[in-house]
Amino acid sequence: MTHEIAVIPGDGIGQEVTPAAVDVLEALEIDFEFVEADAGDAVAEATGEALPQETYDLAASADATLFGAAGDTAADVILPLRTAVDSFVNVRPATAYPGIDAVRPETDLVFLRENTEGVYAGHENRLHQDVSTLTRVVTESASERLADFACDYVAGDEHDGFTIVHKANVMRETDGLFRDTVRDVADERDVETDEVLMDAFATRVCLDPEQFDVVVCPNLAGDVLSDLAAGLVGGLGLLPSANIGPERALFEPVHGTAPDIAGEGVANPAATIISAAMLLEYLGYDEASDDVHEAVEATLEDGPRTPDLGGDAATEDVTRAVIDRL
Amino acid sequence: MTHEIAVIPGDGIGQEVTPAAVDVLEALEIDFEFVEADAGDAVAEATGEALPQETYDLAASADATLFGAAGDTAADVILPLRTAVDSFVNVRPATAYPGIDAVRPETDLVFLRENTEGVYAGHENRLHQDVSTLTRVVTESASERLADFACDYVAGDEHDGFTIVHKANVMRETDGLFRDTVRDVADERDVETDEVLMDAFATRVCLDPEQFDVVVCPNLAGDVLSDLAAGLVGGLGLLPSANIGPERALFEPVHGTAPDIAGEGVANPAATIISAAMLLEYLGYDEASDDVHEAVEATLEDGPRTPDLGGDAATEDVTRAVIDRL
Ligand SMILES: CC(C)[C@H](C(=O)O)[C@@H](O)C(=O)O
Ligand SMILES: CC(C)[C@H](C(=O)O)[C@@H](O)C(=O)O
Repeated sequence: MTHEIAVIPGDGIGQEVTPAAVDVLEALEIDFEFVEADAGDAVAEATGEALPQETYDLAASADATLFGAAGDTAADVILPLRTAVDSFVNVRPATAYPGIDAVRPETDLVFLRENTEGVYAGHENRLHQDVSTLTRVVTESASERLADFACDYVAGDEHDGFTIVHKANVMRETDGLFRDTVRDVADERDVETDEVLMDAFATRVCLDPEQFDVVVCPNLAGDVLSDLAAGLVGGLGLLPSANIGPERALFEPVHGTAPDIAGEGVANPAATIISAAMLLEYLGYDEASDDVHEAVEATLEDGPRTPDLGGDAATEDVTRAVIDRL
Repeated sequence: MTHEIAVIPGDGIGQEVTPAAVDVLEALEIDFEFVEADAGDAVAEATGEALPQETYDLAASADATLFGAAGDTAADVILPLRTAVDSFVNVRPATAYPGIDAVRPETDLVFLRENTEGVYAGHENRLHQDVSTLTRVVTESASERLADFACDYVAGDEHDGFTIVHKANVMRETDGLFRDTVRDVADERDVETDEVLMDAFATRVCLDPEQFDVVVCPNLAGDVLSDLAAGLVGGLGLLPSANIGPERALFEPVHGTAPDIAGEGVANPAATIISAAMLLEYLGYDEASDDVHEAVEATLEDGPRTPDLGGDAATEDVTRAVIDRL
């Protein structure tokens, strides 16, 4: 069966790292059909729309989407694209790779970020000249869906359950509902959980990241805490992510458009290639996924490396090295 | 003029570190009148109220309050106490001290955290079995008051303006109002500002804390990001804080009750003593404040040290060493 893969490079280095990841996927000789589409600042400037309807429709119908990055219009692109694939969880591994300079080289975490609600489903109002409000939404059904995913994720013997991170001491009703629902689902399924307040997590993960493994949290907490973990492993450059829905999914590096180096052909494609490895796993190509992970890891360790990692290789040198190691 | 200082030790090590800080203040022979009051888990168990009315009233009338820590009832104690002093800003310095093991020893930041609104002024509702909401509030007036404080704070030549941290790409109306208001006040007063998204800040502060100095942010962002900075400087044990209002203020260590070591007499009093130094500065005793800061720094560097810092001194040994260095 042919899988249709939407490819949305976007802006800046998205235009460089996304084709690199497609090259890796093509080298695997799997029956993929790649369909490219526009999104981001450039198309917004040309047409007035950061996310053209046909791009949205493509993501909403393709089996999987590979997205690069968008500039100032990032929120106008990525939030609707997450909706297009009906993604209820954003999977964000933060792993320090051997040989890469990291603040905390022992970091090896996965964030399972609620991907539909919280302040992201916020309704905002300027009630009065002086007063703005945002209504944050938390539902039992979204929390349950996330918890079920988390329980499946930690099944097997690699993980001992997961940690629920929240701020229910202040957001008692909303984060309380989130925390209780996730915990109840896990209890029913005999999955171990513990819980940590979001602020305490921020301190503790810096001091000793090894005390955490899989972290389940609301949308904004997942945004901020996974970026914190990115800092601990040496930057956003190496972090992949998966936005998983019930029938399709979207994969993207956590980094942005890197305007300072865009166009120079030296962007690090690792995060996007690892995102492509997550795409392979999602579509059931477990062996190919493992091969790509291993090829990227070997390349990170032994080179060639792009300038962000202290090397002087070009994007295409790294991509070729990964393909040669498959 | 006698200043009345409310002293609220609270629970756990609050009972040990708060008297230590009072001993330091007493050693200065300034005309203070200390009045002690209860709050926290223990009084909640005894009376049903974590924050007795007389404690609230005392904080609302004293010139300054020194608070220790509270256990499970922390939110029920500290949030109303911040209201009691009409505190609109929480000042949280995060400085790595020489000789102390830190993830990022070059960290030297001050967070100016909005202290009255955001999700903390949230109105929560269980709208339906499946749906909870929290309405986050941001006002122009609170943002202005904070911005004015921040501009005063960075006046002089120690600081080059401040960084506004927010998530206005998602919370466009609320964090947008916050960001625009703070920036406009700073522009009018010729204070330089830059701005960073909250998630990007989390990554960047780990990678290179020296790029930041004074950080102005909404309430929850300040909570989480200052705790992140605490992780970078080696833990919550050394962080003081000040909740400043127009006529009075409350000072507290950022750490909690440390139930694992409470009652053993080995809690590190440094954060509370530094909070007392902030209290001295607030009341106009600048020289005494500097003396206490220097005495704590010398003690952190040369000992004696409590077990959390690898020593075997008791709380009272450290307190005596600080007093001897005054
Ligand atoms: C661009 C922005 C809306 C987005 C988010 O906050 O989710 C980004 O920070 C991310 O984490 O992918
Ligand atoms: C106890 C809690 C309500 C409080 C807060 O979130 O403000 C604490 O984390 C703090 O930062 O002082």
